[in-house]
Amino acid sequence: MKIATKEKIDAILSDMKSRGIDVVLFSDFETGRDKNLLYLSGQPSDANLLLFADGSTTLIAWDMIVAGQLAEVDTLVDVGEFNRSYRAAVEDSLKRKLSGSFTLEVLPTEGHFLVLQLQEAFPDSKIVCQPDGIANMLIQARSVKTPKEIDILREGTKVTNEIIKGIRPFIESNRGLREVDLAIFLETEMKKRGAEGPSFETLVANCDRSGMIHQVPSASEAQFDKTGIALTDFGLTWKGYATDVTVPMAFGNISADQQKIIDVNREAYDLAINMLEPGIPAHKVAEAAIGHIKSNGLNMPYGLGHGIGLEVHDPPRLAPKPTDPEMLKFWQETPLVPGMVFTIEPGITSDIGGFRIENDVLMTDSGPEILTISEPIIF
Amino acid sequence: MKIATKEKIDAILSDMKSRGIDVVLFSDFETGRDKNLLYLSGQPSDANLLLFADGSTTLIAWDMIVAGQLAEVDTLVDVGEFNRSYRAAVEDSLKRKLSGSFTLEVLPTEGHFLVLQLQEAFPDSKIVCQPDGIANMLIQARSVKTPKEIDILREGTKVTNEIIKGIRPFIESNRGLREVDLAIFLETEMKKRGAEGPSFETLVANCDRSGMIHQVPSASEAQFDKTGIALTDFGLTWKGYATDVTVPMAFGNISADQQKIIDVNREAYDLAINMLEPGIPAHKVAEAAIGHIKSNGLNMPYGLGHGIGLEVHDPPRLAPKPTDPEMLKFWQETPLVPGMVFTIEPGITSDIGGFRIENDVLMTDSGPEILTISEPIIF
Repeated sequence: MKIATKEKIDAILSDMKSRGIDVVLFSDFETGRDKNLLYLSGQPSDANLLLFADGSTTLIAWDMIVAGQLAEVDTLVDVGEFNRSYRAAVEDSLKRKLSGSFTLEVLPTEGHFLVLQLQEAFPDSKIVCQPDGIANMLIQARSVKTPKEIDILREGTKVTNEIIKGIRPFIESNRGLREVDLAIFLETEMKKRGAEGPSFETLVANCDRSGMIHQVPSASEAQFDKTGIALTDFGLTWKGYATDVTVPMAFGNISADQQKIIDVNREAYDLAINMLEPGIPAHKVAEAAIGHIKSNGLNMPYGLGHGIGLEVHDPPRLAPKPTDPEMLKFWQETPLVPGMVFTIEPGITSDIGGFRIENDVLMTDSGPEILTISEPIIF
Repeated sequence: MKIATKEKIDAILSDMKSRGIDVVLFSDFETGRDKNLLYLSGQPSDANLLLFADGSTTLIAWDMIVAGQLAEVDTLVDVGEFNRSYRAAVEDSLKRKLSGSFTLEVLPTEGHFLVLQLQEAFPDSKIVCQPDGIANMLIQARSVKTPKEIDILREGTKVTNEIIKGIRPFIESNRGLREVDLAIFLETEMKKRGAEGPSFETLVANCDRSGMIHQVPSASEAQFDKTGIALTDFGLTWKGYATDVTVPMAFGNISADQQKIIDVNREAYDLAINMLEPGIPAHKVAEAAIGHIKSNGLNMPYGLGHGIGLEVHDPPRLAPKPTDPEMLKFWQETPLVPGMVFTIEPGITSDIGGFRIENDVLMTDSGPEILTISEPIIF
């Protein structure tokens, strides 16, 4: 079943019409994933979707059993009938529905070669691609969750909290554990509780690796509870929706510089949470938290947070206003409005380790509701 | 450290020069993954790479700690110095290295909007995009594994075999188990043995779901060992390299039609394995195995196999020769030569269940070496 409500789809169609767009093409394949396809059609993956300005939809899929069960579209096309050429099936579907020339919109991330092929197949038609077009409409739609999506995210974060509660006891009864032991524990707990699995590679980093932004490998054979500052960044997928938390930890006699990282991180976190209120622009919260860390001479090389939903990095983004002119051209102020669910995750990276508190927050009419319970664990 | 040998890089550079290409752009981001970047530079992800015709490389990365440790490039650029605009950093790197107009090649999957931006930034330069260009050179390079890659794949398949051996005892001592219980078992065994984790979502499908091509969800709460035909399709990542096997199973008193599926699947598997010899074109093996299944009135809606390596779907592909003229235009016959490592996985889908034997095969000078030990398990 599609996730987008009639109201959200109507807004998208109305935007398409106002810009003279006859049809939008969505692609979700191994070479490039796009959850908008699932959002608009219910089809989980590996398909093309055409959304026409009259609201009708054509899905071109491979696994007709899955598509038949899950997709909610007007026309379902088996790519097998086109010798497994999605391009041929897309061209045929466009011809069947639209006569003469038309205006097709593709997403900024659409594969360049497919666009060249389509332009060649329809030389009199126009292909439009702009970050402030359909992509932006879908960011707007997906940023504000439906009541059903909020229910699922409440369930998923509740399960995440049960797992967070198990971290301290697990470490206490397994002192000397390896990073990978904690990763196995977290991922097994997820599946035991009915989650589909981790929403991204579970990161477990001891003091030697916590200063990286994204650890490679995600969890190693190294001892986890060495003296210093450490963290685990993990999430689970619950009924298709991602959660995402980071639990930072400190082991043993840490240095004054490491303690400063912990303290400044907590200050930045509290500062961000206290700023949250319905309508506050996302970039202002991000700039304040990152500014606080930088003013203490510390490094935070990423944004303050991001939406969670069908993707672990869902809209909206909580990042400072860009300074690059080309990025600024397409930038829009994003007020944090009720129905948005996002992470707040100020973090500090350094060569003496990294530290990051990350929780998932639902904005409501009366202010932020912190859905997850991550807190620094001090051993 | 980069994976491509000097010999392979020289072949790529020589091809670039012969086609008048000055520089190739690679992108590996959340919106579109490309392991060629890792292959050519050692950088695991989240970066742009420029490969110039003189062999020099520029990497534009976010996590400078990871890049500093792992990337092997001539120039390392911190995207933070470009206000986190990869596009701005790419433009700057192109300007620094190339004077005047130039010819830039992008991969077929490169995001369309970035290509539009680069064309606007360099109006006198030419942007080339063709499936039989650099993409094909990298398919050729990555299809034939280096001795070091083969060693890693031998290790990974050995670990996979240890896990395969545990499946029958696990099911026998957990009769009535859910699909998800088997998934947890397999994934825990992977991590226990030092694998990074599953190389793709572990699929576990009882008789009601084994007929799908790619199960959604990948493993459910349903009872796994119901009477009928079932399967688990899984793999692990070992030192960055994917393995991929399918173990099919039968439970209880199956019907004659289900037995026919098992028998025909075995015949197609044996037929394919027996055809393997150095130099045989991949499409001939695929056509024979799929033809055998179809001639028995059964359905096999996918290719016979695929390479394994940095990706679980690595080159080469073992698929029938395409019939679509546009696909045929860029198709090349692929002889299965020594050093290639690929799956052989004939499978049958139906509404009374699916069955698929899948093993990983290394082609050697003296013929195929079957690296994994999947066999149907009959309960």
